Amino acid sequence: MQEYEITFIDKGVTAPAGVKAAGVHAGFRKDPNRLDAALVVAEGPHVTSAGVFTKNVFCAAPVQVDRELLEKHTAHAVILNSGNANAATGEPGLDIARKTAQATAQALGLAEGEALVASTGVIGVELDWGPFEVGIPALVNALSKDGGHDAACAIMTTDTHPKECAASFEFEGNTYTIGGMVKGSGMIQPNMATMLAVLTTDMPLGRSSAKEALRRAVNVSFNRVTVDSDTSTNDSVFFLSSGAAPVPQDDDEAFNVLAYALRAVCENLARQIAADGEGATKLVTVNVRDAASDTDADAAARTVANSPLVKTAIAGHDCNWGRIAAAVGRSGAAFRQNDVDIDIIGMPVLRAGLPCGFDEDEALKRFEADEIVIDVSLGTGKGGQARVWTCDLTHEYIHINADYRS
Amino acid sequence: MQEYEITFIDKGVTAPAGVKAAGVHAGFRKDPNRLDAALVVAEGPHVTSAGVFTKNVFCAAPVQVDRELLEKHTAHAVILNSGNANAATGEPGLDIARKTAQATAQALGLAEGEALVASTGVIGVELDWGPFEVGIPALVNALSKDGGHDAACAIMTTDTHPKECAASFEFEGNTYTIGGMVKGSGMIQPNMATMLAVLTTDMPLGRSSAKEALRRAVNVSFNRVTVDSDTSTNDSVFFLSSGAAPVPQDDDEAFNVLAYALRAVCENLARQIAADGEGATKLVTVNVRDAASDTDADAAARTVANSPLVKTAIAGHDCNWGRIAAAVGRSGAAFRQNDVDIDIIGMPVLRAGLPCGFDEDEALKRFEADEIVIDVSLGTGKGGQARVWTCDLTHEYIHINADYRS
Repeated sequence: MQEYEITFIDKGVTAPAGVKAAGVHAGFRKDPNRLDAALVVAEGPHVTSAGVFTKNVFCAAPVQVDRELLEKHTAHAVILNSGNANAATGEPGLDIARKTAQATAQALGLAEGEALVASTGVIGVELDWGPFEVGIPALVNALSKDGGHDAACAIMTTDTHPKECAASFEFEGNTYTIGGMVKGSGMIQPNMATMLAVLTTDMPLGRSSAKEALRRAVNVSFNRVTVDSDTSTNDSVFFLSSGAAPVPQDDDEAFNVLAYALRAVCENLARQIAADGEGATKLVTVNVRDAASDTDADAAARTVANSPLVKTAIAGHDCNWGRIAAAVGRSGAAFRQNDVDIDIIGMPVLRAGLPCGFDEDEALKRFEADEIVIDVSLGTGKGGQARVWTCDLTHEYIHINADYRS
Repeated sequence: MQEYEITFIDKGVTAPAGVKAAGVHAGFRKDPNRLDAALVVAEGPHVTSAGVFTKNVFCAAPVQVDRELLEKHTAHAVILNSGNANAATGEPGLDIARKTAQATAQALGLAEGEALVASTGVIGVELDWGPFEVGIPALVNALSKDGGHDAACAIMTTDTHPKECAASFEFEGNTYTIGGMVKGSGMIQPNMATMLAVLTTDMPLGRSSAKEALRRAVNVSFNRVTVDSDTSTNDSVFFLSSGAAPVPQDDDEAFNVLAYALRAVCENLARQIAADGEGATKLVTVNVRDAASDTDADAAARTVANSPLVKTAIAGHDCNWGRIAAAVGRSGAAFRQNDVDIDIIGMPVLRAGLPCGFDEDEALKRFEADEIVIDVSLGTGKGGQARVWTCDLTHEYIHINADYRS
């Protein structure tokens, strides 16, 4: 992948020209001080949109509604609520998701179908219309360039802090910007939370370019985060372009730099999700290289990242190459055990399938870092590679997920 | 599957005629009171053997040696040690595994290749010959019909108790018996433990019948246990027949009843493993039915059983159908969400994809049971089914696997 020069800026989803946002307390949550509804709107001469949604067979009502809407319409806005996921709610759930999208479009003066909807929180509980009745006008009223942070706060569930990112780059003498916000994929009592992300830009884009750039970026970012295994019922990533910046001359090159910058912003947000996994004390990055294929590398990296034994070892600051080797060995990736090298936080621990001595004190020192990097080479000579992010598995995870009833 | 009448008896691996065993302290472990070497021997007019081994690419030296031996020879004996897994030990590890097999065969007056070898314990540490020098004669000397319990104790690692099972059945007016012992699949500091099982019988069997009966039994028992995800480097299941009971007349029917009884013994042992998973307080049985295929059912059941969210919910006595639905939904099994029913400990919690109210007090009462049963019907009309056993995920698991260094 070619590298371009991009600059991260201390902003969020509203960083691009033409993008406004808001976050308010609408009443989905009981605590009046907690924001629970967010709105992101792209205004400009050439609005484009794209979305990527969960592959879980159990998918929430808003996911089903958004898929329908995006087939026929361009989205200019996304309304999001936390506190209730509107999942496993049957026909009434679909009705309220459609009504929310419609009312939001209307309040913004958009055509029908131009607003999308997302929900996160408990599942299997009917979503009340009441809070939207208050929330939609309040959100439209609060829309501003400064509303990105409130929006990021309003979609939080078990997240310990809001997650935002923005970056800008020069192209053909003009500045373009990408913004984003996300909430994490941890799971929460009594049911499940989800991953929701909104990405924005001001670069004018074709519909298929927006879709392709988003697909690529999600594949190497949000799809590479695993906290407690996989997609939930509500996972949704939205991408809105206002088109408010100048139209680029060189379409192909504009797409390349946009895709590069979008990927960088999504990677940054994905790492924030992994680092803030439930009970996490460490961000864990698993790199697998020299696999027989990228697919094999992906299987190996995911098996390591999902292994409770690897994750508890990291929580215990234990340089446990055996658990990593065992996970790689059962991942389905093709390799020979005598070709495998493993490094933990830059220290060689396995070479050609055999353990190498390492300095235990040095290992303990390196485990103080916030990010633990595991590098595995399968030594097939074929060059397949993959990277996956996760977090360690701690008592706090068990506490969050098991103890609330006892 | 046809049902036959079998009777469980309070014995272990030596229950069948012609089978002896022993367990001694040979010195693989420091504690002189802890048994760490076991021997099981089948003596009779028609000895047969079979083995099933880990599919992990990282497989231990004894696994490699046993695979070679079983291709050319019939095993009459298995020697097992705990404390060191002889895994990731390179050529020296293979040499010592071969030497152990050879010395054991010699000490028993068997031909070369007629004894197999198994190890469990730390990996990546060279296995000393010394303890075998003491242990092999001591084991041979201690061999007896009463030695099954000592043998079962000698192979324990993180197991909290030895695991034995035996059953007998009548066929053509004669009594036949199956015995077995197993150690669990939990993982332990500083590296990994494994699943080792020895099954025995006195029914005279052809080589291919023994192999096929074992393959079928393992597929629906040990291969359906998941504590922290999958096969380790040393997993091995051995099956020895002494042939000391009368030769059956009806070969086909004899195979059927033998396969049935072997499966019953293996299921019993598999459930013992799951119930004694590290930190476990509950045995969890996941049944999936009416999937599009048995393969789909298996994928769904395993995804539920491996889900840390499902397992922590059970530890927290939480009737959390949402986490079960989400796991099934991402398992890759084909179904429609509106066709799914879920029951937890016999209580309907989801019908046709929608939550049904249940009595919370009744749920808490039912969660007091030692075994938690989850039933999922995918409602495809195709009848695919699978059963998987696991355990809950508790603070104690994290304690065992993370805390030993801090």
